[in-house]
Amino acid sequence: MLERISSPADLKRLPLESLPQVCAEVREFLLQSVQRTGGHLGSNLGVVELTTALHYVFDLSRDRCVWDVSHQCYPHKIFTGRRERFEKLRMTDGLCGFTHPDESPYDLFHTGHAGTSISLALGLARGVAHETPQPHSIAVIGDASLGAGVSFEALNYAGASGQRVLVILNDNEWSISKSVGSMARYLSRIRSAKVVQRANQEIHKLLAAIPVIGEKVDRTLEDMAEVMRHAMVPGHVFEELGVTYVGPIDGHDVKYLVENLQRVRELEGTVLLHVLTEKGKGHPSAPTHPERVHGVKGTGPAPKTAGAESSKLPGPTEVRPAGPAYTKAFADALTKLADRDVRVHALTAGMPSGTGLEGFAERFPARFHDTGITEQHNVAMAAGMAKAGLRPFVAIYSTFLQRAYDQVFQEVALQNLPVTLCLDRGGLVGQDGPTHNGVFDLAYLRTLPNFTILAPRDATDMRRMLEFALNAPGPVAIRYPRDNCPGVERIHANERTAMLPGKAEVLVEAPAGERSVAIWAYGALVNQALEAVERLARRGISVTLVDARFAKPLDEELLSQHALAYRYIVTVEEHQRAGGFGSAVLESLSRLPNARAQGRLLGIPDRYIEHCTTREEQLGACGLDADGIERAVLNLAAATRVS
Amino acid sequence: MLERISSPADLKRLPLESLPQVCAEVREFLLQSVQRTGGHLGSNLGVVELTTALHYVFDLSRDRCVWDVSHQCYPHKIFTGRRERFEKLRMTDGLCGFTHPDESPYDLFHTGHAGTSISLALGLARGVAHETPQPHSIAVIGDASLGAGVSFEALNYAGASGQRVLVILNDNEWSISKSVGSMARYLSRIRSAKVVQRANQEIHKLLAAIPVIGEKVDRTLEDMAEVMRHAMVPGHVFEELGVTYVGPIDGHDVKYLVENLQRVRELEGTVLLHVLTEKGKGHPSAPTHPERVHGVKGTGPAPKTAGAESSKLPGPTEVRPAGPAYTKAFADALTKLADRDVRVHALTAGMPSGTGLEGFAERFPARFHDTGITEQHNVAMAAGMAKAGLRPFVAIYSTFLQRAYDQVFQEVALQNLPVTLCLDRGGLVGQDGPTHNGVFDLAYLRTLPNFTILAPRDATDMRRMLEFALNAPGPVAIRYPRDNCPGVERIHANERTAMLPGKAEVLVEAPAGERSVAIWAYGALVNQALEAVERLARRGISVTLVDARFAKPLDEELLSQHALAYRYIVTVEEHQRAGGFGSAVLESLSRLPNARAQGRLLGIPDRYIEHCTTREEQLGACGLDADGIERAVLNLAAATRVS
Repeated sequence: MLERISSPADLKRLPLESLPQVCAEVREFLLQSVQRTGGHLGSNLGVVELTTALHYVFDLSRDRCVWDVSHQCYPHKIFTGRRERFEKLRMTDGLCGFTHPDESPYDLFHTGHAGTSISLALGLARGVAHETPQPHSIAVIGDASLGAGVSFEALNYAGASGQRVLVILNDNEWSISKSVGSMARYLSRIRSAKVVQRANQEIHKLLAAIPVIGEKVDRTLEDMAEVMRHAMVPGHVFEELGVTYVGPIDGHDVKYLVENLQRVRELEGTVLLHVLTEKGKGHPSAPTHPERVHGVKGTGPAPKTAGAESSKLPGPTEVRPAGPAYTKAFADALTKLADRDVRVHALTAGMPSGTGLEGFAERFPARFHDTGITEQHNVAMAAGMAKAGLRPFVAIYSTFLQRAYDQVFQEVALQNLPVTLCLDRGGLVGQDGPTHNGVFDLAYLRTLPNFTILAPRDATDMRRMLEFALNAPGPVAIRYPRDNCPGVERIHANERTAMLPGKAEVLVEAPAGERSVAIWAYGALVNQALEAVERLARRGISVTLVDARFAKPLDEELLSQHALAYRYIVTVEEHQRAGGFGSAVLESLSRLPNARAQGRLLGIPDRYIEHCTTREEQLGACGLDADGIERAVLNLAAATRVS
Repeated sequence: MLERISSPADLKRLPLESLPQVCAEVREFLLQSVQRTGGHLGSNLGVVELTTALHYVFDLSRDRCVWDVSHQCYPHKIFTGRRERFEKLRMTDGLCGFTHPDESPYDLFHTGHAGTSISLALGLARGVAHETPQPHSIAVIGDASLGAGVSFEALNYAGASGQRVLVILNDNEWSISKSVGSMARYLSRIRSAKVVQRANQEIHKLLAAIPVIGEKVDRTLEDMAEVMRHAMVPGHVFEELGVTYVGPIDGHDVKYLVENLQRVRELEGTVLLHVLTEKGKGHPSAPTHPERVHGVKGTGPAPKTAGAESSKLPGPTEVRPAGPAYTKAFADALTKLADRDVRVHALTAGMPSGTGLEGFAERFPARFHDTGITEQHNVAMAAGMAKAGLRPFVAIYSTFLQRAYDQVFQEVALQNLPVTLCLDRGGLVGQDGPTHNGVFDLAYLRTLPNFTILAPRDATDMRRMLEFALNAPGPVAIRYPRDNCPGVERIHANERTAMLPGKAEVLVEAPAGERSVAIWAYGALVNQALEAVERLARRGISVTLVDARFAKPLDEELLSQHALAYRYIVTVEEHQRAGGFGSAVLESLSRLPNARAQGRLLGIPDRYIEHCTTREEQLGACGLDADGIERAVLNLAAATRVS
């Protein structure tokens, strides 16, 4: 039957009775396809019926539907003509794992961060208010996203504005790990709702039985009715906020969903439809191991890592065995630090597993704080903890820290408090694409006074940098990519340059007579730069390589030496070229009156880097793999010879 | 009596009966002193009794109290030994208008942005949990701040965590303009609370009158009691979130406040004490013109603008008459634009007056949207509006836009939507200090692909830039300072270089033989640079002056000409030197293979600029007034002659 649905119009032509069959086929397709390719399986299995009913009841070529985060958009993509493209889901040139306007007019926004769908839907509603009939504006949002501050801001505004917006709360009772906070508990109480439902029935009987004793009680009864209306409707918190609450309803009964959507479609104002779903519904492991079904790794053949050009020479990962993931190196080192120092606390905002902190949480439950998808609160709370003498380490993906930028400024940097931000997914992330690339952090952090900003090239420096942070008097940010540390480290831990503020480490030094190019690399890309330098050496070109280690403060002493000794200082970073590490080097060079060296910046160009099968491909496309760095130096060498 | 209180200990020694007298004297002192110096009068008059009671009941040398925003800290400063310093409130080297740890150990944080006090108090509570007896942790937060998403995140977390934190909701029913959103309406319903209170009394009578009819109804009655407990407590929304609600209580009865604080001090878990206050209490104009009492301008002698050095030569404001405030130039131009184009909507986040949009709001009520202190929702909603075909102009102070950074990234820039961010208070702000300086926006916006970033030097370019934004295909940011436009404009509107993407305008061109220094200035500082260039010309030094107009994209064509023709390109901007306009110029120069020119950056150094009486003083301290720019060029000229 799915074969015959290539657009929502095809779906809408089917009789209501056939929808369960459609849903069964979508679920079967997802199980088959996503198990093979990898992707967000659990959340998509949970919304099969909801998506089917939405497309059946609404005309989403005209009505506006915003999928919060949008990782639950696979059934939507199936119904909107993209079923056959699932073979390359989240791969290079393949389907995006999120909604994406470039793919389909049915995808309004390309999102990946949680909690903004209600605001977007409100804006859309305002924009289409003059059309007749007014298109519907719908936000589909999960229970975890509802805990994000921006969701509350939007609901609070919606309730008061009286705009017609339908908010569908997709309540699967647990988010990536598990919903945190009292709103989650409240939803859970509604979910069980036994007290309220029973009381509801019985009170009606009671009220009927009460003798009328004059006008006074009549008025009282009216007041009581007002009070009870709030008390007995599950969801009266929402009602108090001016939002009409409907639910909770079973999110896996597609016909019942259709019926309810048809009903709420007729309501005015802001409506919250509370739909109960099971994440991973229909997956054999879901009931016992829900986290295994959230994001699955594909079972299909491993994608080719390298593009045509870089396959000419062996890449670093082929030459050198891989070490532990940076995430694991971080979590292991932090756990050891916490063993030694009781002031060490770890915080995360809904990502205990993604940040590698599950082990820490087990070992130090009282010193581990998962606040849910609430980066703002998380960072501000860490500032309070630091002020009271603790040493909080806040592990948040680089891109999600953007949500807490103002708290990073006001609560942390301005107060000069020893909070350490541990930025996972710093750089390009491969399959998740631009919503998850962490490529702006150096610019937005570096401009804030008081911050010290570091990045390790391997597991040993990860450990040493966390130790540095523990003893730092003010705020520190350490960023690391979604990748593995090198399996073979360049310099033994005991022989490294001391980890002092702003102190860089020279890894390769060109002989005195051949000082044309010095590469200053930052973070994990030091390894790609090292590979390039070794290849260049095999070509007879000597290049100096510096692991800058600190983006702020810079090693101005070494830089001023290099500014005199070299013709070019080439910076290498996994960050936008605008405002990043390279700009910091240029700024320093501009302060040196006699600098001879010219800066050349290698970094991410001024555009959003779409999802690819691997981070390596993205690095290659930006000229940030060993090939690209080698090529850049060869070009400079050629220019030097010409001039 | 106030004379004898130089610390909280002095206050605590007084008998309860004398507190009303203390409050009367504090209020009288505030009225006298703040009327003279200027400052946040209304909010401080509103918290006289609350602050007195807090210091009386708690030991704030040990218990932790966080003042949200902290502009209501004047009575607190009076009780903590700073009464005599009020003469220089918010002036250079004088008392800060917010809490500031450098001033007193009683000030824990230096804040100015709303909504983070609950998170900070939670962090403090965690940090002092091991002390015996455990110090209390208190957040004092206004009703408008409670609508900020981060407050909800924190309350949601607090209720579930069960930590002992006292949240004092200082509900004065209207914030800077007026609270927005359904939470505000909810608080207002509690405030009146007539229905609930009457029903409460009557239902008890009713319940007592109901005949018991067996076990079944007994159980039902229990259920009912559960339901009614929620229904009849005002504040059951908070109760549902796991927060113990107490109130509402009269915030101007100091003895009653003491009594209630003593009572809630003994409660466990998270407690919200709802205190009703009147902003401007005791001020003669408050009841009729509350907005006049919010922030008052001083009636005392006008502060000296210029420091010793810059008084040698007349400053630009003395030479040239002042034009309209940039804020007014913006609002007037936007209103005209809205006259012509129905797609134009204006948004603000709780600052209708500060952003100058009150006139727009009156003229186009349906196209004006004040969402309250909810920058995140505001920007995301604007994205939705743009997606639906409108042209939203979002007027937010530069520093407050930090709160919406992630929405600026994901909802606006990544989607490449035509949302225009109008950043008021871009640059240094004088009396409010580092929490309000807007000096990071170029760095955090410039790194995001798709943005076009501009700044006008005068009212004419403000208008032209807004027109440019109206026709731009993607996101635009326009920033302008808290100052007046120049009264005399350099070039007539009709003779200016067309406002095309990245096109700069040359204001002064040095003769061909004298091309040593080109100044590239950005935004309002073009005027200071012009003054410097004119002074230099009088000294016989010819300097070229470019109004860059665009920080992104840069005029790379002109820049590459200047890179060949000049020895130095001096950039001038009212922004941190790290990552700003100057860095953009350096980045461009680094891409030019044959650049001869060296970049020199004038901007704000890598530290927080404390409050001063005037923005001009702050500019002077940063070398960004005409003096500083002149000096910098003279130094370069000297260096050129030597080399």
